[in-house]
Amino acid sequence: MRYHIHRRAVLTALLMSAAGAIVISRSPALAQSDPLPSWNDGKAKQSILDFVNAVTREGAPNFVPAAERIATFDNDGTLWVEQPMYTQLAFALDRARALAPMHPEWKQKQPFKAVLGGDMKALAASGERGLVELVMATHAGMTIEEFERIVKEWLSTARQPRFKRPYTELVYQPMLELLAYLRANGFKTFIVSGGGIEFMRPWSEQIYGVPPEQVVGSSIKTRFQMRRDIPELFRLPEINFVDDGAGKPVGINEHIGRRPIAAFGNSDGDLQMLQWATKSGGRRFGLIVHHTDGEREYAYDRKSRFGHLDKALDAAALNDWTVVSMKDDWKRIFAFN
Amino acid sequence: MRYHIHRRAVLTALLMSAAGAIVISRSPALAQSDPLPSWNDGKAKQSILDFVNAVTREGAPNFVPAAERIATFDNDGTLWVEQPMYTQLAFALDRARALAPMHPEWKQKQPFKAVLGGDMKALAASGERGLVELVMATHAGMTIEEFERIVKEWLSTARQPRFKRPYTELVYQPMLELLAYLRANGFKTFIVSGGGIEFMRPWSEQIYGVPPEQVVGSSIKTRFQMRRDIPELFRLPEINFVDDGAGKPVGINEHIGRRPIAAFGNSDGDLQMLQWATKSGGRRFGLIVHHTDGEREYAYDRKSRFGHLDKALDAAALNDWTVVSMKDDWKRIFAFN
Repeated sequence: MRYHIHRRAVLTALLMSAAGAIVISRSPALAQSDPLPSWNDGKAKQSILDFVNAVTREGAPNFVPAAERIATFDNDGTLWVEQPMYTQLAFALDRARALAPMHPEWKQKQPFKAVLGGDMKALAASGERGLVELVMATHAGMTIEEFERIVKEWLSTARQPRFKRPYTELVYQPMLELLAYLRANGFKTFIVSGGGIEFMRPWSEQIYGVPPEQVVGSSIKTRFQMRRDIPELFRLPEINFVDDGAGKPVGINEHIGRRPIAAFGNSDGDLQMLQWATKSGGRRFGLIVHHTDGEREYAYDRKSRFGHLDKALDAAALNDWTVVSMKDDWKRIFAFN
Repeated sequence: MRYHIHRRAVLTALLMSAAGAIVISRSPALAQSDPLPSWNDGKAKQSILDFVNAVTREGAPNFVPAAERIATFDNDGTLWVEQPMYTQLAFALDRARALAPMHPEWKQKQPFKAVLGGDMKALAASGERGLVELVMATHAGMTIEEFERIVKEWLSTARQPRFKRPYTELVYQPMLELLAYLRANGFKTFIVSGGGIEFMRPWSEQIYGVPPEQVVGSSIKTRFQMRRDIPELFRLPEINFVDDGAGKPVGINEHIGRRPIAAFGNSDGDLQMLQWATKSGGRRFGLIVHHTDGEREYAYDRKSRFGHLDKALDAAALNDWTVVSMKDDWKRIFAFN
């Protein structure tokens, strides 16, 4: 089965919000001597340690005050698994199936017919328009609290098809250590994802240690209304912002209002964020997670349906960004390994 | 001279960003025994102390964990003076005058003709459309760094007409103490203003202790672009978001992703923010700054051109929000008093 889904189409489609649930404490047990125990010694690990050392040593030429130590992380493929499809797309498909009994007309109507028949090729053929329709039908039409509950419930039962585990367990242990290491060195860590802001916020703090106010993502519009004297925010079937590609620096500026000094991604959707963070003078750090381990995770880059990494890989060489080979640089990938 | 300018029109018009400069350290010297020394003893002050005590005492029925202690503050009229006009409007007028030599056509074209002739009545008559045009001409067409520099330079020289002082000195000392008191009790303080997000960020940290990432406001769109291999964010003459009235809960949700437990405002533009924060169950706190002191500041409410306070004043009585009389509740208003 071959099909192609445009990343922007999926993102536009996934403009949503709210995931969570499986509350597993995974504070990495850092060895006193090694803040990054799941990383193999090598150039990648060393480049991280060197950067943090350079910007945190008071009086050193590249010292950066703590308030300006902003680090931004992509989510899908950088902090957690994005294959065989973005988690949020899996959520949208499950949600459409759950809602189908209330929509008998979906049996004859694309993109719903494709979803209900499991025909991914036809879903892809419905294009951005079809995906947006799918997302609006599954992510809008309720209050923000209702959506949060729906996402949490889904995450508590859904399982990733290959690993048979909750999606929130499929986060990269070396990246959790990196997040914690940066925070221990005065950094403020943000997520800047093409995924839906309200799909991530319900679980970002428990899983990543990143509170809701430090999550930036795509979004649909909401409307404030009083219902029986109770204020509520109602989710509308209308795109508000697509936080991907050239949208990432825009989202960073709007939400954070400071320029990051370090950025972490894994795909062409992160190219402009990496440029924005690193090409600004002073000591800066860019890092790309390269999915090279088909055995322990997935192997893909230039022609992948999700997490397409082509231009950003070329730019990494030109700009001296660190490219992490998951196979070579990571001792283990998941906490359960 | 009578004229009327719609608040929304001004806000839409003031959708901008960037002020700063006058770096005066004003950390309030808190008396050990009294965290709010510029407040007179009375119901208003007591209601603040009672609320903070109730939500911070571990084990108490209304205890709120520190991570959820979100407090949101309006800016114009709540933290600093908004008369005889919003500071950002004064900035836009000065900026239009400065740019006029490059635009000979403005002499014949509204709203610029009105601005250059000092005809506020004609400016008001140009309506929302005229004000938006004024703002776009003065706030867009440069990078975010250029705009920040322009705002800082303006603030370093501009003087408020009545007090003959820099605008950044016309902040309310009791409110600075309140911000500091809340932070000392584990609160995260945010600004949620109808004013331009990038007009406030350059100075919010120095003046209020609120870092850029905790400022929410109105905005125009920006575009990411590479120019001679240098990434930049360019300000476009297009409205992105109006953070006023029913837009405030929307902006709060998008930026913070948590519901405030305390909100502070002074006008009808803050009504929905106060509803959103306080009508959610649990111990909550709403406060309205009532401008009752024509001698030391300004006296206005139900029919004011800027800071119109009518529905929100009625709602305060219904919802048990604290109404602060500047005349009676504040021992002093400015640090220089």
